[in-house]
This record gives sequence, C-alpha cells and structure tokens, in this order.
Amino acid sequence: MKFPVYVSAYIREIMLPNVKIELSEAVSLIKRYENILILTHSLPDGDTLGCGYALCRALRALGKRTDVACSDELPKKYAYLWEGMERQDFEPQAIIAVDLADAALLGDSLSLYAGKIDLCIDHHPSNPLFAGATLLDPDAAAAAEIVCEVIQALDVPIDEAMANCLYTGISTDTGCFRFSNTTAKSHRIAAELIELGASYADINRIMFETKSASYLELQKLALDSLELHFDNLCAVISLTQEMFRVSGSNEVESEGIASLPRQIEGVMVGITLRERPGGQVRASVRTHAPLSAGDICKKLGGGGHPRAAGCRFDCQMEEAKALILPIVYEALEEAK
Amino acid sequence: MKFPVYVSAYIREIMLPNVKIELSEAVSLIKRYENILILTHSLPDGDTLGCGYALCRALRALGKRTDVACSDELPKKYAYLWEGMERQDFEPQAIIAVDLADAALLGDSLSLYAGKIDLCIDHHPSNPLFAGATLLDPDAAAAAEIVCEVIQALDVPIDEAMANCLYTGISTDTGCFRFSNTTAKSHRIAAELIELGASYADINRIMFETKSASYLELQKLALDSLELHFDNLCAVISLTQEMFRVSGSNEVESEGIASLPRQIEGVMVGITLRERPGGQVRASVRTHAPLSAGDICKKLGGGGHPRAAGCRFDCQMEEAKALILPIVYEALEEAK
Repeated sequence: MKFPVYVSAYIREIMLPNVKIELSEAVSLIKRYENILILTHSLPDGDTLGCGYALCRALRALGKRTDVACSDELPKKYAYLWEGMERQDFEPQAIIAVDLADAALLGDSLSLYAGKIDLCIDHHPSNPLFAGATLLDPDAAAAAEIVCEVIQALDVPIDEAMANCLYTGISTDTGCFRFSNTTAKSHRIAAELIELGASYADINRIMFETKSASYLELQKLALDSLELHFDNLCAVISLTQEMFRVSGSNEVESEGIASLPRQIEGVMVGITLRERPGGQVRASVRTHAPLSAGDICKKLGGGGHPRAAGCRFDCQMEEAKALILPIVYEALEEAK
Repeated sequence: MKFPVYVSAYIREIMLPNVKIELSEAVSLIKRYENILILTHSLPDGDTLGCGYALCRALRALGKRTDVACSDELPKKYAYLWEGMERQDFEPQAIIAVDLADAALLGDSLSLYAGKIDLCIDHHPSNPLFAGATLLDPDAAAAAEIVCEVIQALDVPIDEAMANCLYTGISTDTGCFRFSNTTAKSHRIAAELIELGASYADINRIMFETKSASYLELQKLALDSLELHFDNLCAVISLTQEMFRVSGSNEVESEGIASLPRQIEGVMVGITLRERPGGQVRASVRTHAPLSAGDICKKLGGGGHPRAAGCRFDCQMEEAKALILPIVYEALEEAK
C-alpha cells in the first residue's frame, strides 16, 4: 500500500509552527479530519505499534478512514495488535506520528513524511518539536499513556482490542512495570485497561517469556564466553560472527544479551563486545551506580547514558578487550 | 532468639474456632494485644517476608512489642525488608501468621506453633482455616494486598519502609505484574505504594535482574542439555548432580530453570528433569493451553496445576525421559 503525499496545512495556517499543544487542542485537530495516516518509528517496538493501532482503532470507531504505516516489517509477535483490521487506502488529510522522538527515526521508506507531520504524540524529553503540533508528556512512561488519554478525550469507549494495544505499549516500555520510568499513573492506567479486558497475562507471556531457539543458543554461547575481571566486579561477554552463524541468531535478537553481564550478583560493570560483519567491534556497557557507563565509553570515543552506553573499536575482539578493561579498572578504582 | 510458647485463648473464648473473619474483626483482634509474634512460612519468599515485616513495622509504630519468626534462614537479598529494625524478645500474647497456606508450611523449628495461631492473614484459596481466625481473600494476588488494608484499617501511616515491604510482596507474587493472578487492584495498590515512596526500581532489580554466577553457570549447562522433540513442540532439560557440582548451584536456585523450556518459541510442553542426590529423578512440567501439565503428571503418579505440575521417577534420567515422552506425545496428539 502506498499513501500519496498530501498533507494538511492546518497547523501552519492556524497555529504557530512546531508548538507544544494541550490534550484538548490535539483532540480538536484530530476531530477536524476524516482521512488520517498514523506513522510509527522504524525498528518498531510495543509502544509505537500499540499507540498506532489503538489510535487507528479509535479513529475508525469514529468513522474515519485511517491506517498505520511503518518503515520496517512488523515483528510477527505483535500480530494481535492489528488482528481483525483491514488495510485502508485513502488520501491522507492529516498525518499523526506516535512515539516518534525525532523525524529521523521514521526510517527510509517513510522519510518523505519528515517535515509534513501535523501532530506528534510523544513522551521523549528530547523531542525537538519537529511536528507542526506536539502533544508531549515527558513524564509518561510510555506514549501509550498519552494515547489512552487522547482516546478517552475523543469520547471513544476503549474496547478489548484497544485495551490490548495500550497495555502493550505501557508494559513493553516499562519492562512490565520494572523500570524506574514506571509511575503511579502507569499502574493506574494498567488497572483500568485490565478492567476493560486487556489480556495482560497473554501479552506479557508473548513479550517477556517467549524466546526463539536461536536466541537461547546465542545466550548459551554468550555465557560460554563470559569472563570475570577485577575481583568479579566486571563481567565481559564476547559475541563473535561465528556465534551468530552457529546459533542462527542476529544482531536485533542479540540486544537482549547486553543486559546479561550486569545481572550477575556483585558485578558493577557489564560489557558485551559484538564483532561486526566488517570486523569492527561494538561494545555495550552497563553499570550499577555509582559507576558511569557513559563516562567509560566517552573515554573510548563513544557515549550514552549513566547506566547504559556504547562505543566502537576499529580492531579485533581481543584488542578491544585490552583497550576497554584498563578504563573499567580506573573507573572501579575511582569509585572505591 | 527463642519465643516462649504462650498463646492467647481469645479466639477460642470469644468466637467459634477456625472461622473466616472480616477486616474489622482482624483489626479488633490485633488492637487487643501488646505482644504479638508474627510467623512466616518456611522457604520464605517476598510475599511472606514482605507481609511479616510490613505488619511488624506497623505494630511497632503502634507501640506494640512484636517480631517476625521463620523456620529457615532468610535469604540475604531481602535484607532491606528488616533494615534498621532491632530484634525484640517478649512473651507473645497473640500469634499471627502471614501468607501461610497450611500449618504444615511453618517448617520444623516453628511447628510447635501449629494449632496455636490466633490469626492467619492469607490469600491461598486452599487455606483450610487452620488458625483460630483467618482473614482470607482468595482474589488477592498477594497476601501483602490484604496486609496493606490491615495496616490502613489500623490507622498506621504507611512509611517508605512499609511501602517497600508491601511492594515486594505484590511484585514477587505477581512476577512483577506479569502473571494472570495480577488484578486491577494489585496495580492500584502498587500505585499508592509508589506514591508513598516504595523504591520499586531497586526492588525489582534485586528480585528479577540479579542472578548468581553459579545460577548462570547452571543455566548454561541446562541449555547444553536441551533437547527438542515432536517437531519442536516439546523441550526437555536434564539437570544432573554433576551439573549442580560443577556450577556450585543448588536445588533452590534451580527452580528458575523449570520455566526455561516452555519459554522457547513454539514449545507447548517444557520438561525439566532433575537428578536427586539419591538417584531419583524429579520432573517439572510446564505447558501452554490447551495442554495440561497436571494431566500429564497424573498419568505418572504426580499432579499439580493445569499449566505447572510435577512427578517423580524411581529410575535414572534416561529411563525417566523414556517414560515421560510417550505421555507427552499422546497429549500432543490429543490436542491436535
């Protein structure tokens, strides 16, 4: 399906461009148009897809023509989000992006819409307000929390299918209510969605308890490569191209491995080294406070957050290890 | 610390023995006594300990003398539950058990209290009302949900330490809000506890993201032993005594392994066979609907729940496998 590039000039006519708007203004904007295209970010996750299909179902309940578009193929495990929905083809009068922190994250095949988005519903504090209007709540754990409020403000009753979509967004973005971004509000919305019929146990099983055989094989090989350094305060996993080949796993699946080394009791710095097809090595560093993963990676030309960061090496695995370990040792000594 | 066996006869005097009571009656009973001993179940988990220490902190806030007792050593990871508390020695006037489904679960060193428990606060539907009075809510995901209501009804303000205890109970018994026992109420109580200062992210990291090096080593050996049968619909892991020896892990830690085989994409029946020190083999069976783990184990002299069950074999690992696999095959054929 191809959507013709026709974009409303509503925002640019009526309002200042690139502004933050309130819930009621977002609702007025949505009510104004009959044909609405909803965009998700590339490498789609549970929040962007949950938001997209919840909003799409709500707008269809209002009789609008609308559909969800994504640059990348949608992972099969999310199939219940669009179950029972038929694709609709139409000329969009307005374009809404959900959970899109930056227009660059639209991906290649949707990049033509960058600069043409009328409304962005998002929760990333870093959102540079690239859309005509942005409904932004940086305190929301998931964009799905905001979409939930939008649907309620549109007076659309949330059915089971919408509840499943919204629950998926909140559950996946909070690691099932585990991470520090979870708020009391996240829990209260989850409570409502459960009462509205969200199949939360099934959703969580699919999202958090289902692993491919190839991932488990890669995890086994990863654990085989595990090394402990500096009185077991630092754990290193090394993933080679050979391991990807033997396990049948891939880079996307291997993202989960990066959290493993830091999970070991007593480990303060967990490092996952990944050999790239070209021979380069990518390091993912995870720390516990007070150690800063960002500081460690900065010294090696990379960067990131205090607890999760990364850097790249133009050398072989063993050399990369020899470069990063002294930096980790210094950081551990400083933290003593 | 030894608690003398002195038990109030309140219940037996005033009320019918072994009755279910309401929240207000439980509160009256608690208010009546100054010295109260709180008992948890053996092999203590986050719910029984969270309930025990939350209630103990609340009763101490009311000026009562009280402490928590458990038959087994308390796992170190729960240390924050009793942080800052001093042990108290006293002659108990009343005995309260928390999250105790049956008096037999008191364990050896507390078994002297069986038959002498004044009040049991519990959520297990199977609770046979062994205590003088039982405050039972089989719909509660965790006993901590009920203890939370008890503390509120006692008019004790829930402080951060109590919030941590209660959150721990709910989070651990629901697999961090993942399992089907989670309710809208569980989420609403969690929301309140977060607002009261529960360190939910730290608690969840300790409970769900910290693994011992020996457990990871056992997991690696377990994955090495993984076999797929019947078009990959059945996965079998075999844990030998040798694996426990090599990894330095133990039976308690190995419980987590039992959930692994069913997590593999497409697997309907996951089996974990554990060699016992005496040479016997214990099987843990986990299924996805419509397959019944309980039915499979029943045919082998065991039993359990529809999705999780177990049985024992008086033979070696390979023989046990040869006995259980045909039963699984039959079940898979019937479900076709």
